[in-house]
Amino acid sequence: MANKGEMNGARRRLLGAGVAALAGVIAAPRPARAGHPAHARRWDGEFDVIVVGFGVSGAAAAYEALKAGATVLVLDRGSAAANESHGGYFYLGGGTALQRALKVEDTPENMYKFLIAAYQPAPAEDKIRVYSERSPEHYEWLVKLGIPFGERLFDDAWPTAAGVGLYFSGEEQSWPYREIAVPAQRGHMPSLTGLVAGKRLQQLLLDAAREAGATPLLAADAQTLAMSTDGRVEGVLALVDGKTRAFRAHRGLILATGGFANNRDMVAIHTPQFLDNTPIDVGSNDGWGHRAGEAVGAALERMDGAVAYFNLYPPLSRKQGLLVNAQGQRFIHEDAYYGKLGYAIVRTQGGVAHLVLDAPALGDLNEMAGPRRANRGPVIAAQAPTIAEIERGIGVPEQTLQRTVEFYNHFAAKGEDPLFHKNPKHVRPLTQPPFTALKASVKDVYFPFFTMGGLRTNARTEVLDSEDKPIAGLFAVGRVAAGISTPYYVTSGSSMGEGTLFGRIAGVNAAANGRV
Amino acid sequence: MANKGEMNGARRRLLGAGVAALAGVIAAPRPARAGHPAHARRWDGEFDVIVVGFGVSGAAAAYEALKAGATVLVLDRGSAAANESHGGYFYLGGGTALQRALKVEDTPENMYKFLIAAYQPAPAEDKIRVYSERSPEHYEWLVKLGIPFGERLFDDAWPTAAGVGLYFSGEEQSWPYREIAVPAQRGHMPSLTGLVAGKRLQQLLLDAAREAGATPLLAADAQTLAMSTDGRVEGVLALVDGKTRAFRAHRGLILATGGFANNRDMVAIHTPQFLDNTPIDVGSNDGWGHRAGEAVGAALERMDGAVAYFNLYPPLSRKQGLLVNAQGQRFIHEDAYYGKLGYAIVRTQGGVAHLVLDAPALGDLNEMAGPRRANRGPVIAAQAPTIAEIERGIGVPEQTLQRTVEFYNHFAAKGEDPLFHKNPKHVRPLTQPPFTALKASVKDVYFPFFTMGGLRTNARTEVLDSEDKPIAGLFAVGRVAAGISTPYYVTSGSSMGEGTLFGRIAGVNAAANGRV
Repeated sequence: MANKGEMNGARRRLLGAGVAALAGVIAAPRPARAGHPAHARRWDGEFDVIVVGFGVSGAAAAYEALKAGATVLVLDRGSAAANESHGGYFYLGGGTALQRALKVEDTPENMYKFLIAAYQPAPAEDKIRVYSERSPEHYEWLVKLGIPFGERLFDDAWPTAAGVGLYFSGEEQSWPYREIAVPAQRGHMPSLTGLVAGKRLQQLLLDAAREAGATPLLAADAQTLAMSTDGRVEGVLALVDGKTRAFRAHRGLILATGGFANNRDMVAIHTPQFLDNTPIDVGSNDGWGHRAGEAVGAALERMDGAVAYFNLYPPLSRKQGLLVNAQGQRFIHEDAYYGKLGYAIVRTQGGVAHLVLDAPALGDLNEMAGPRRANRGPVIAAQAPTIAEIERGIGVPEQTLQRTVEFYNHFAAKGEDPLFHKNPKHVRPLTQPPFTALKASVKDVYFPFFTMGGLRTNARTEVLDSEDKPIAGLFAVGRVAAGISTPYYVTSGSSMGEGTLFGRIAGVNAAANGRV
Repeated sequence: MANKGEMNGARRRLLGAGVAALAGVIAAPRPARAGHPAHARRWDGEFDVIVVGFGVSGAAAAYEALKAGATVLVLDRGSAAANESHGGYFYLGGGTALQRALKVEDTPENMYKFLIAAYQPAPAEDKIRVYSERSPEHYEWLVKLGIPFGERLFDDAWPTAAGVGLYFSGEEQSWPYREIAVPAQRGHMPSLTGLVAGKRLQQLLLDAAREAGATPLLAADAQTLAMSTDGRVEGVLALVDGKTRAFRAHRGLILATGGFANNRDMVAIHTPQFLDNTPIDVGSNDGWGHRAGEAVGAALERMDGAVAYFNLYPPLSRKQGLLVNAQGQRFIHEDAYYGKLGYAIVRTQGGVAHLVLDAPALGDLNEMAGPRRANRGPVIAAQAPTIAEIERGIGVPEQTLQRTVEFYNHFAAKGEDPLFHKNPKHVRPLTQPPFTALKASVKDVYFPFFTMGGLRTNARTEVLDSEDKPIAGLFAVGRVAAGISTPYYVTSGSSMGEGTLFGRIAGVNAAANGRV
């Protein structure tokens, strides 16, 4: 709600070019056309199932449709399968083989209880049920595809050691969740390392789809869905080599086109608080699938949903620090999943924050792990022998930060955090100079985001209209569909987990769908 | 983001009836059908313009369409024109006759500057421009219709004296707005009093439409829009006396159907944070117009937008109090417009707050004005001679509220509020016992809300699809359309102001539209 000045670039499409230039606005990528479904008269190719988008969700969908005996066309706008699935790990539980092997106690019911609590006030109960119950089987499927998972257990978030297969990727240990469900490690991490672990993981999934028979048509730019005269989605029109081609899907068309973080108009309309964040999505995530679905009558759900990453972990010792707002006050337990920290900074604090640390909590600045973040490490706002100097250094009102630290230390000496119930293992008085404030405001640091809102679907992945009736022939999976982790995100790895599991479900259901 | 337990009634449609009963969930009113646009074969009546919904927006639309010479059908679901337009006043400015008479300095540019700043980060620039420029003329129009405005100027929000015509209904005096634009009173208040001032005001507008020739068809329950085969909205199917009737609109159909606060499914999907708030809208505000628009390809905008009213003003002295969250911390300037206070409580504080006052700030409990709120006055959570006792009484952590008050008093003694820049005229140390904490949590008090998100329209009130192309023949005004005060609300009276001004624009444009 903070005033950000008149010229923030939002509603750019409503401004004249001159004003936009004045505001230093960069032109948005021109979104592909999606608004008007076409009726195709002739087809350039006919298939049982068409999958639009060859990321992990699309790959899983194509794989299962092919295994079910369907003929499948996969279209992707990219010139190579270069879609970036951000995470390199899967949120899974309910007693997977890896959990059992590492003696992590978990059941589908326990996972369900946690997810229902974590995604209040309006959890997607049906999808959470399916996700919790099918997780163990889905893990087996991933293993069978050749994904090599690590074999060691890690007792917290953000494992830095090699070989970890299972760790806490979400909010399981945070209050109040740790009292609602037994905390279980559910971040299933493949033993892939290096600069492009996420991409290599995706490649494994894409290769599996290819081995199953998928031959993706690349550089194929989907333009509009094709509707039959009786209101069924029966195909898609795509630009291929500069020509519009019509492809028919006899049984089902699966949208797997990702989010809309790179469509600045859609961000301004649906998630304007995130206009200052950097889209983490690949450039092709321009909401084409959302708009194409809308154009054939699909309902949208939770379009305000987005995740922003407060990108300052690890090392773990930073959780000992205090995250403070423009008033020098704390506003969250600092051991929260970093997507939750980011959400709180953007949504409840107007994008303004600092992380205050003493010497041991700061740890080694060079320890900033995560190869993709190597050149986007912590930025020091102030470093000084006293908190009073830090207070002046970061420009919060006089006496505020000092009182915040003094209050925190008073209870931290007893291992308590009465304000936000930080896990006691991270609670320690901040007393050892020098003190450091790291920048944590959206405008000051690399603060990526991606969108979570999408087409309304049921647990069968059928796309629904505003009356909850399925739109015949249309399915959606991955970030183009509203899912479990909407509108925010406290279970890292669930985009990969949901995307692939519900991708599989879409593939099976589309292949089994009645033929046009 | 607070955990509210598993059984909050959201996603009720996904639960079995047994679970819903267990959760104490009340069945939602069954929404009228809207999902599938029909093609009508014969018509029971043909008109130039059809207006669906006879509230103030619909009345203004019908009035102007009739004045332009169009034949007009007005449909309303109610058995009498009993739609409740909440406010009894209009947010207008830019130098209205009343502003000039009362020597309030304002220009369209000044109003524009304020509104652009107030509705960051993505203000609806085009609509704000029209609203600011046409406000003075619109005021004349309202006067000509016979609406009697008060003649006295009031220097703050919430006039309690009689005869006030102009006061601060929004955030104009708050920081930072008071430094961005010259604060001008823009709440234009009619001299109508009593229990049903809002209703009487609406009645005046409805009567004006009737005098212009509108003969509303009441108890007419719109079911679906009718589409021509070439994709133009050409009418509506409505249930009248148990039979489906088809009404044709040759030039344009105007949706003026209000918000969706009474559709609990839509609230769960789009504004789940407000599930515990009480819908202020009339029961018929079930989002039918949103769904009908969606079904013909309209895009939705800012569906997360909603206003919640922290309902404890006047007396003004309460602004001297401290609004504190579950951590005993302040989070906003307490002199904010009460819709902004409500928004902050719901959106940034998980719905939990108390208002802490000393004896003079409390004032007279019986002074709680606003006849409709007579039996929903303040609720005392704690009253005691010391803040320490208040702290225990409201259950915030030990030492938090005491430190908050001590800090506040320290600077208040100098007339300063370094944390939130409360207007100095309301800043005073809270030192005089007894101290009182009033309940301000969503679950503890009457905490009404209504929704602000709606169909995407341009400043001509044409409904747009996801590519910003107008849907031929379809217009939308009032809360069914996304407007200026979306996604939140810091200008009380702008629903009435926007609704009637853009209602008029819709009436003119629909009447001038090309005939089918």
